[in-house]
Amino acid sequence: MNYGIVLKVLGNILLVESTLMVPALCIAFYTGGYDKFGFMITILITLLIGSIMSRAKSSRSTISAREGLTIVTLGWVLASLLGALPFYISGSIPAYIDAFFETVSGLTTTGSSILTNVEALPYGSLFWRSFTHWIGGMGILVFTIALLPALGIGGFQIFKAESPGPIADKIAPRIKDTAKILYVTYFALTIVTVISLRMGGMALFDSLLHAFGAVGTGGFGMRNNSVGFYSSSYIHIVLGTFMLLSGTNFSLYYAIFKGKWRDVLKDEELRLYLGIIFISVVAIGVNLALTSYSSIFLAFRDSYFQVTSIITTTGYSTADFDLWPSFSKAILFVLMFIGGSAGSTAGGMKIIRVLILGKLIKRDVAKMFHPRAYISIKNGGRTVPNETIVSINTFFALYMIIFAISTILISLEGIDLVSASSSVAATLGNIGPGLGFVGPMRSFSEFSFASKALFSFLMLLGRLELFTILALMAPKRWASEA
Amino acid sequence: MNYGIVLKVLGNILLVESTLMVPALCIAFYTGGYDKFGFMITILITLLIGSIMSRAKSSRSTISAREGLTIVTLGWVLASLLGALPFYISGSIPAYIDAFFETVSGLTTTGSSILTNVEALPYGSLFWRSFTHWIGGMGILVFTIALLPALGIGGFQIFKAESPGPIADKIAPRIKDTAKILYVTYFALTIVTVISLRMGGMALFDSLLHAFGAVGTGGFGMRNNSVGFYSSSYIHIVLGTFMLLSGTNFSLYYAIFKGKWRDVLKDEELRLYLGIIFISVVAIGVNLALTSYSSIFLAFRDSYFQVTSIITTTGYSTADFDLWPSFSKAILFVLMFIGGSAGSTAGGMKIIRVLILGKLIKRDVAKMFHPRAYISIKNGGRTVPNETIVSINTFFALYMIIFAISTILISLEGIDLVSASSSVAATLGNIGPGLGFVGPMRSFSEFSFASKALFSFLMLLGRLELFTILALMAPKRWASEA
Repeated sequence: MNYGIVLKVLGNILLVESTLMVPALCIAFYTGGYDKFGFMITILITLLIGSIMSRAKSSRSTISAREGLTIVTLGWVLASLLGALPFYISGSIPAYIDAFFETVSGLTTTGSSILTNVEALPYGSLFWRSFTHWIGGMGILVFTIALLPALGIGGFQIFKAESPGPIADKIAPRIKDTAKILYVTYFALTIVTVISLRMGGMALFDSLLHAFGAVGTGGFGMRNNSVGFYSSSYIHIVLGTFMLLSGTNFSLYYAIFKGKWRDVLKDEELRLYLGIIFISVVAIGVNLALTSYSSIFLAFRDSYFQVTSIITTTGYSTADFDLWPSFSKAILFVLMFIGGSAGSTAGGMKIIRVLILGKLIKRDVAKMFHPRAYISIKNGGRTVPNETIVSINTFFALYMIIFAISTILISLEGIDLVSASSSVAATLGNIGPGLGFVGPMRSFSEFSFASKALFSFLMLLGRLELFTILALMAPKRWASEA
Repeated sequence: MNYGIVLKVLGNILLVESTLMVPALCIAFYTGGYDKFGFMITILITLLIGSIMSRAKSSRSTISAREGLTIVTLGWVLASLLGALPFYISGSIPAYIDAFFETVSGLTTTGSSILTNVEALPYGSLFWRSFTHWIGGMGILVFTIALLPALGIGGFQIFKAESPGPIADKIAPRIKDTAKILYVTYFALTIVTVISLRMGGMALFDSLLHAFGAVGTGGFGMRNNSVGFYSSSYIHIVLGTFMLLSGTNFSLYYAIFKGKWRDVLKDEELRLYLGIIFISVVAIGVNLALTSYSSIFLAFRDSYFQVTSIITTTGYSTADFDLWPSFSKAILFVLMFIGGSAGSTAGGMKIIRVLILGKLIKRDVAKMFHPRAYISIKNGGRTVPNETIVSINTFFALYMIIFAISTILISLEGIDLVSASSSVAATLGNIGPGLGFVGPMRSFSEFSFASKALFSFLMLLGRLELFTILALMAPKRWASEA
């Protein structure tokens, strides 16, 4: 491995991060918060380390697969380690493991929190906390668009697999253009969210933070009862809708911009995404209206918000869904695994994988009657290569295996199985809250050091689509067996 | 579809079933049970319907794929419908849906029960109930060995995929010989189990019933606290071991008989099976010894019994594992999905599928470093065809999708999510008891008619490896798209 190039790239990542902390520093100074020195010291430390690392000399300018994976993994870990410092130094989050957990949760756009009283945080820290979602969401886009295709690995195949968007074709020749289009979309979506929330009477600071959380599909808020704090139905519905839009494949917005409406309407992933949301909202809405809710409107409003929040893996809440009937909770639990669309900032397994799995099942049914027939799997009119099919399947299996093993480990905390399994599903799927012990009105604060470390690992694992990190952890022998 | 041949085969299945009820009839008469007329009437009805149906004329003697699937599915349903009559007519199980549930549970070797007081059943009914496990276990063998290869579908590929056993090669030319070998093994294992239990002081009747339950990996007992009734550690350990042996690929016994010890020791499925059992027994044993148990011996004895019972999908219990710590329960829950070895009477997803999934994950890790490399998946020295790999993956995905949807439906009962999900896992995996509401000391009696029907469907679905039934239920369009 060429350590020079790895150090150099990591150094540059830290330089960027230190710059990204400046807005929080300004807010801390402007509001006179006790966390201003925390930001100042952290920015200096990050600048220093970043400058030193970025001076590393490299004999090559191309990177190998192993170097690429190392950069991505260590980049996220280092950014989290240093991003946690403002909380720790200022004392707004006293224990370092908690500050680290919170920062990993932010950057991976998870939104799980160890804070029991988020309203006690100073403004600078609140801003930085939510801003990590926005940075993380952007990072995912770089990661998906720029880095993975260069390495030629799984994530790109997923991206390629969904097709009516124009990007799949053009991605290889001009990655920079593609990234630019996505960034413009990301910025535009954020600005429109802020404006829409402002129109509902939300304060500017609150609107900004919730836009970061929604567009980045993160879920950090600034109130102890999340979005439930804002009583306006307008806010609930608008925020729910922007979460839904942020969980949609971004390339579709470009297609709309180019006037390719018909392609967008025919997009199978979009249809399945909206279909799952529609069925879930109706099922939960009816369930709530028949049981705990006296108002049908409120039942559907809360159902809509919670469904869009969970399937897009954002994790905001307007109701304590942990108190909902089992039927509603079971649906939300399943949505945690599905996740949002590919090419968005959402986590989970992604709709496109569910779509392909469904087609595979349909094919295997047909094969029961025509065992020798060759039936190809198509998506958007194009045949999905066999290799992509197998890797989608393998991803699903690995996801479930990691879920199962982690649930066993977390259950050592002595909590019930719903709490243990949903806390793992919520972190691995980058969602935020789970059920029971980690319900929307609870936090991850009471877990042990070891569990918090495991959760942090799961958040990174889920965000980097499992294989990136696992490949580095696997015995070297595995790689050489190819 | 050629209805003549379908009716004819189904008629023959019923004729066999009526014969298989004779031992229970004899026991009912011998013990003077009130259920003797139930058996008499049922035998006559079954004989009558069977004779009429078996006279159906058919112009062809070969069967198509659709006919084969119809015969298998209807065969199991009809056998269950009529097999339930003795319980219903005699009144030993007053509601027909309960009697049907119990019979499906028996024939599919599940072992879930709607009885709250099994000790109240007359001897004839007790015998028939356990005997359905033994018939069902035998049925699985016919199904796997004789029918699936003829249709050329999934299950056979799984069977083919495991290899050091001699049968995989020889199965096609002489199916009858293969079946004969398996039947001899099945009989021998049953007899040895009976003798071993007798040696531990268990009564002959009890030994027979528990042998049926263990070798068929069913789990119906005759005591309200299952095998916990027998206090002897010898009984616990012996029965645990025979469950373990019954969850092993039967072709390995033939290999041993042929002196091919080395092949058996190298069998990867066997190694993984024993490895999972070993790790689970140790983990649970230590967990129990450190928490609720004062004796290390008892902790490991109970851990061994419950682990072998769950992984082989038998479902006997010697302890109320629902009261165990979350860690132990989480491990058992995961074992419910894994299941026993292919080519055994066990249910679940089967070890061979887990093995192949593990190899796929390893391969995808290698591909992170060598994206363009072609790496084949091998099992027992032979390359597993790509088609088999995809169908193993698809099976896993379908299994989880059915599990998720059914859990959502069952949660409409208003029970907690652990009870809902484990009741689905326990029926779909043909295990028997679950956790919470369906824990080992509880029963399925309190569920609604609809839920009992869904559970019966899941037991059949799990037993027939999902696709058999689903193919028949799918829109005809799916089949014709091939």
